[in-house]
Amino acid sequence: MSLLVMKFGGTSVADLERIANAAQKVCREVERGHEVIVIVSAMSGKTNELVGYVEETSRLYDAREYDAVVSSGENITAGLMALRLQELGVPARSWQGWQVPINTTSAHGAARFLSIPRDNLDAKFREGMKVAVVAGFQGIAPDGRVTTLGRGGSDTTAVAFAAAFEAERCDIYTDVDGIYTTDPRIARKARKLDRIAFEEMLELASLGAKVLQTRSVELAMRYKVRLRVLSSFEDTDETSGTLVCDEEEIMESKVVSGVAYSRDEAKITLVTVEDRPGISAAIFEPLADAGVNVDMIVQNISERDYEDHPGAVTDMTFSIPVNQVGRARNAMEQARAAGKIAYDDLAVDDDVAKVSVVGIGMRSHTGVAARMFKALADENINIKVIATSEIKISVLIDRRYMELAVQALHDAFQLDRPDVGADRTH
Amino acid sequence: MSLLVMKFGGTSVADLERIANAAQKVCREVERGHEVIVIVSAMSGKTNELVGYVEETSRLYDAREYDAVVSSGENITAGLMALRLQELGVPARSWQGWQVPINTTSAHGAARFLSIPRDNLDAKFREGMKVAVVAGFQGIAPDGRVTTLGRGGSDTTAVAFAAAFEAERCDIYTDVDGIYTTDPRIARKARKLDRIAFEEMLELASLGAKVLQTRSVELAMRYKVRLRVLSSFEDTDETSGTLVCDEEEIMESKVVSGVAYSRDEAKITLVTVEDRPGISAAIFEPLADAGVNVDMIVQNISERDYEDHPGAVTDMTFSIPVNQVGRARNAMEQARAAGKIAYDDLAVDDDVAKVSVVGIGMRSHTGVAARMFKALADENINIKVIATSEIKISVLIDRRYMELAVQALHDAFQLDRPDVGADRTH
Repeated sequence: MSLLVMKFGGTSVADLERIANAAQKVCREVERGHEVIVIVSAMSGKTNELVGYVEETSRLYDAREYDAVVSSGENITAGLMALRLQELGVPARSWQGWQVPINTTSAHGAARFLSIPRDNLDAKFREGMKVAVVAGFQGIAPDGRVTTLGRGGSDTTAVAFAAAFEAERCDIYTDVDGIYTTDPRIARKARKLDRIAFEEMLELASLGAKVLQTRSVELAMRYKVRLRVLSSFEDTDETSGTLVCDEEEIMESKVVSGVAYSRDEAKITLVTVEDRPGISAAIFEPLADAGVNVDMIVQNISERDYEDHPGAVTDMTFSIPVNQVGRARNAMEQARAAGKIAYDDLAVDDDVAKVSVVGIGMRSHTGVAARMFKALADENINIKVIATSEIKISVLIDRRYMELAVQALHDAFQLDRPDVGADRTH
Repeated sequence: MSLLVMKFGGTSVADLERIANAAQKVCREVERGHEVIVIVSAMSGKTNELVGYVEETSRLYDAREYDAVVSSGENITAGLMALRLQELGVPARSWQGWQVPINTTSAHGAARFLSIPRDNLDAKFREGMKVAVVAGFQGIAPDGRVTTLGRGGSDTTAVAFAAAFEAERCDIYTDVDGIYTTDPRIARKARKLDRIAFEEMLELASLGAKVLQTRSVELAMRYKVRLRVLSSFEDTDETSGTLVCDEEEIMESKVVSGVAYSRDEAKITLVTVEDRPGISAAIFEPLADAGVNVDMIVQNISERDYEDHPGAVTDMTFSIPVNQVGRARNAMEQARAAGKIAYDDLAVDDDVAKVSVVGIGMRSHTGVAARMFKALADENINIKVIATSEIKISVLIDRRYMELAVQALHDAFQLDRPDVGADRTH
């Protein structure tokens, strides 16, 4: 008998009616002959209520008590889901983290999995249990205290169970019906993908398509867990949603799978920086210490080569979220005041956006960058910074051109056309 | 170092402000040099919310899932209370039932304690923990599922911990400031008792003074746990409230300690019942099966003695809660129709109340009944049924005289006078 993992997030179990709806979906999989492990989040709003209690009670709260309180939300949903399944005639029971047990590190609030022994659930499956409803987002530390995994941890719980129980698939039910070639609100022609490779999903997730928690995709990639993203608010079947899988399962992939964007970026340039070994560290350590998330980094070519000209200077450009500009400026000015770095000017362009094309096909195909740049040039969009990785090309552009750029790139790479491999002819 | 158990019920931890107030009381006991085990209920309203979820999800719910869901309320309070104590500088941590562990039977929804091993808490006390905040009302079954003890279970949890940890005292904080000689709303002169014996408390509790759960008093009596009832809404010190204790601790007790009442009683008389061995069982078994709570039972003297006259008849009178009259009538009529009993008539008086005087001093003093009957006769109150136990005399009277009877008896036994032993002169 094959085993499925099904995960329902907070909006999918927001109230008793939605829990009943989710239970129907689980019931259907049981009728298809599956055993199922269901991972549930707290009913939406519950976690915030509990977090509110904790924060109001204690300013600098003990993370162990935070975890003990906040994990209650998932326990409640797990019990209610099991009850609902029983009403439908499905032999189901709830499992709290310590009952499985879900062994984690003791990093409360951000714990990581150590092990998920199969014995207890397997024994109950053998006794006739068809569905194990597991409280997501939580675990138990080596000292027996309750832990939580941090926000989005329920996705990760689902993938970890799918890996531990060698599930046929891990279905993530959420409020969208799959992964799109780009944001349909921006490009009308955006198309839902049937399949996408783990690596592509990782690039898309971190670039703004916030459907799956990055950590859960990483874990799925490592253990080759086939992840499916689908809607909990629509009728779904075996072909619904988008399958996130190993690239070997994607027979003929397009060169580019999707166009991602990030609207609120800022570009900072340190002008005339002393160019010496260790200067990058001297700049980016204070930024990291200040909690600034640096994304793209470009160092302009030095005026002179360092080996020959110890007094050489350079310009250093990097991008950060626009709401961190103040923090970044402070960090740089303090570092300069402390004599750790030297620069003539700190130029801020807080009116930029990032647009990226992503696709594992790039690895074996050349000319993607040229085609991207031409598409943007055809629209008279100026490129301010370029960064590339093996499966992604990102550019910073003026924010007002962002939508235009996304549409132009979506068209240029013919992402609206479902015919697999068609791209190869270009 | 001496150990105290402190229990806070639902209204005492109804919101974050009241949790903070309760934490202050705990903090004060720590400052006095105690280690403390705090037992908490769910914030009032929470349990009902969770029960509502369960009942709406499943009509005939699985009690194991009910327990898993409903026990969350206490876990939340325990975490919040621990956090609040930490804010006050007290080394505190929360304990869920399975973490202690609180071992119970697997009778979900009405579990009973099997054992409360001291090892885990003792180890933490040795490491410097001053307060263990334990989620009340819950435990863990032999198979590892979460159990609950049923309503009022938090009082019982408190007493069980006090017994297991040989606590100096078990303080039950509630919304009244102690046990009174009678209901102050009825008798203006009602006086708070400093001490009351377990047996007296049991009679008073079951007779309508619903301050302490009967089961918790039974447990306290068995393990000689000194229970103190006091207000969580007033400033309290070592002498506040009422101590419920072994009668040996009450040096000179009055003959009567209190007057209890139960307003909504009904008296049922089966007229002309065939009087034969086994007739009582034939009557009261169907009533028990129908869930009727029979209280007082009086069998009038048979017209003729049974041994000589096999065909003798009798009248059988019993009292029940007035809202069970219909159920009792059905049970009796069905038993008659089935030929199990025979009677001429079933007479119902649904307009009666019960008034009782309670006191361990009765054991060694005579004349209490006579004095009670005289006090009622002086007010022209007719007695319909009398029942006596070793430390209690109860009468059924017309409901409209109930308040008058309580006042008259309170006066007759001089319960407003604090001078211990004064009664003995009568």
